[in-house]
Amino acid sequence: MSTMAGRELFVSAPGKVILHGEHAVVHGKVALAAGLNLRTFLRLKPNKNNSTVLINLPNIGTKLNWNISDLQALVPSFQDSLHSEAVGPSSEQLDILKTLAGVSNGSRDTESLAVLAFLYLYLSICGQELPSLEIVVWSRLPTGAGLGSSAAYSVCLSAALLTASGKLAYPEQENIDTTRWTQTELTLINRWAFGGEKVIHGNPSGVDNAVATWGGALRYQAGQITPIERVPVLQILLTNTRVPRSTKALVAGVKDKLLKYPNILEPLLASINAISEECQRVLQVGVDGLSKDHYSVLEELIDINQHHLNVFGVGHPSLDRLCQVTASHGLHSKLTGAGGGGCAVTLLRPDIEAAVVDTVKHQLSECGYQCWETSIGAPGVSLHSSSSLPEDAITSLNGA
Amino acid sequence: MSTMAGRELFVSAPGKVILHGEHAVVHGKVALAAGLNLRTFLRLKPNKNNSTVLINLPNIGTKLNWNISDLQALVPSFQDSLHSEAVGPSSEQLDILKTLAGVSNGSRDTESLAVLAFLYLYLSICGQELPSLEIVVWSRLPTGAGLGSSAAYSVCLSAALLTASGKLAYPEQENIDTTRWTQTELTLINRWAFGGEKVIHGNPSGVDNAVATWGGALRYQAGQITPIERVPVLQILLTNTRVPRSTKALVAGVKDKLLKYPNILEPLLASINAISEECQRVLQVGVDGLSKDHYSVLEELIDINQHHLNVFGVGHPSLDRLCQVTASHGLHSKLTGAGGGGCAVTLLRPDIEAAVVDTVKHQLSECGYQCWETSIGAPGVSLHSSSSLPEDAITSLNGA
Repeated sequence: MSTMAGRELFVSAPGKVILHGEHAVVHGKVALAAGLNLRTFLRLKPNKNNSTVLINLPNIGTKLNWNISDLQALVPSFQDSLHSEAVGPSSEQLDILKTLAGVSNGSRDTESLAVLAFLYLYLSICGQELPSLEIVVWSRLPTGAGLGSSAAYSVCLSAALLTASGKLAYPEQENIDTTRWTQTELTLINRWAFGGEKVIHGNPSGVDNAVATWGGALRYQAGQITPIERVPVLQILLTNTRVPRSTKALVAGVKDKLLKYPNILEPLLASINAISEECQRVLQVGVDGLSKDHYSVLEELIDINQHHLNVFGVGHPSLDRLCQVTASHGLHSKLTGAGGGGCAVTLLRPDIEAAVVDTVKHQLSECGYQCWETSIGAPGVSLHSSSSLPEDAITSLNGA
Repeated sequence: MSTMAGRELFVSAPGKVILHGEHAVVHGKVALAAGLNLRTFLRLKPNKNNSTVLINLPNIGTKLNWNISDLQALVPSFQDSLHSEAVGPSSEQLDILKTLAGVSNGSRDTESLAVLAFLYLYLSICGQELPSLEIVVWSRLPTGAGLGSSAAYSVCLSAALLTASGKLAYPEQENIDTTRWTQTELTLINRWAFGGEKVIHGNPSGVDNAVATWGGALRYQAGQITPIERVPVLQILLTNTRVPRSTKALVAGVKDKLLKYPNILEPLLASINAISEECQRVLQVGVDGLSKDHYSVLEELIDINQHHLNVFGVGHPSLDRLCQVTASHGLHSKLTGAGGGGCAVTLLRPDIEAAVVDTVKHQLSECGYQCWETSIGAPGVSLHSSSSLPEDAITSLNGA
């Protein structure tokens, strides 16, 4: 182990998709979440001028800096955070941060929340002697699409700041492009990321930061998060219909329907629970290679759950259209997350021809949707050598 | 009461749709069946020549007659049927009928089965002294579409032959266009019609003839048929996609899926059961007039069940298309019967504009589908005055 004395570092963390169990999880059923290989990348560089800390978020055009001396005065208010039992900011800390960032109370825009989360993590983690840093965070994830972009951001910040401030060892990386932290270290990263998520979301479930930290897949039920050891990586299309939706209204709608038709819809929650269980079973059985039959089961589970979600009223014509387009090429899709628009996952079997995928992507983009060919079961937060970063990531981080 | 001495008589009986519970009923759940007002009409006329009996089925171009004297010789083999406990023909009786009609063993064409059922009912019901009759049966129902056309045929024949042979009283009909029989008489009609159904189907459930006899709606569960007293008449579109399907293969497919995913699909059977119960509840609550809210519930139940049936793999692209076309006009549809093509029911709210219905019918016929604007909850077997018959029925019966 070596420490991170003045070294530049590159970190990435995955997004998140709900494979199965969205909405049902609100009613105590199992949900499966998986790491989405649309990653968020962070570059941390010690600042030569030694007097400012800078955060740069090229996705949203944010570039802000503060004098270290100004921030140092606030440190006493944050120095207990590192050793406190409670996770996340106190309301007093939030007030201090809002004043510092010039964010008015109740402001919920992406930039304000991202800045508050950064300042919270920077002041709390780095404490005592604040380092002068330049941090750039760039993401392939769309924000506000239910893909865990804020969690990936918080996890990248936590991992980078904990490492830069010497609170985590710099993983051994000789001639290795990408390394990960130990389980104990990941637990610390996740704990701080959860704090960042609290700044951004108020009362997050903790699923998103857990997925961004550990990657792979995890079960979530009644507040309990259980990582699933080793899952196969699945190729998917991740499509954003770009139809905006209100998660709160959709969740309320499901609750109303359950109250109206308990005998008809309670069994459906049980069915969704069994879908999550069966999906987990197949992923674990097929961890060293999914058979064609395994893929057929995964496809059937997707189709069944998509019908169930429609029954609960969280479908949308844009999602119907997406399912039709992909079905016409033999592919199976379901909404992921809140529904009512938003995003969908389409499973890609390994034997599918590239031309078919291209056609589907083309047709989906003609519907006005944004479409990524990516994978799930992606690794969690990772430390990279600069040479191992994808070209667009390094360009975006350096050009920002 | 008067007897039917040498009088012409007109009888009609409705078809059948399954409102909810198809497939689930095979696994012990409740199904709701309803009388479909696409009716089968029968005219029975004493034959002046007094030496032949004639059956005329203009829908399938069948016109056959037999010498009464030839048939009289067979009567002893059938005379016990009227008083026997068992319902339906013995295999010896079937053999006699096949020889008489020149039908080879295993022949399952519509004409052969219709003729065998007629001869069975004629010989069994009229017994002793066979009357010389001319019978025409014409139907609006397509055959082989799961709409109970054979049951409507058997019920019309039973009612007409029982009345013509004096075994049922001719219902009082002074100045009344349409009359029905008493419950006891309907039970007798139904019993004979079930015998006719056995000739045609081998091992029918008895639901179709019960619906054609009693009309309205009935529950069917685990072999038990329970008529529902008084149900409102619902306007519907009944659409035949004309996609042929194998009921046996579809039923087997559902069973296979249940075996493959018991934990996921058993709850769905429970959900379908609850849909049938809720539908029955709404129909009974709304017997004297369904409110807008009642219609909304009926529409939701239709949508939910259509999703469930798709999950069980008994949907079909033709049905998806039908649902899309009707949904684009705010109408709700589900398959009825076996699925995999076949027929669908679309609920028409009373406040729907005629122009919308016309547009939907036009668009469905452009898909190559056959579409009827009709109703369910229709009355069961009825005796008509000739003047009260619809024009196309009287034309078809007289012109045949």
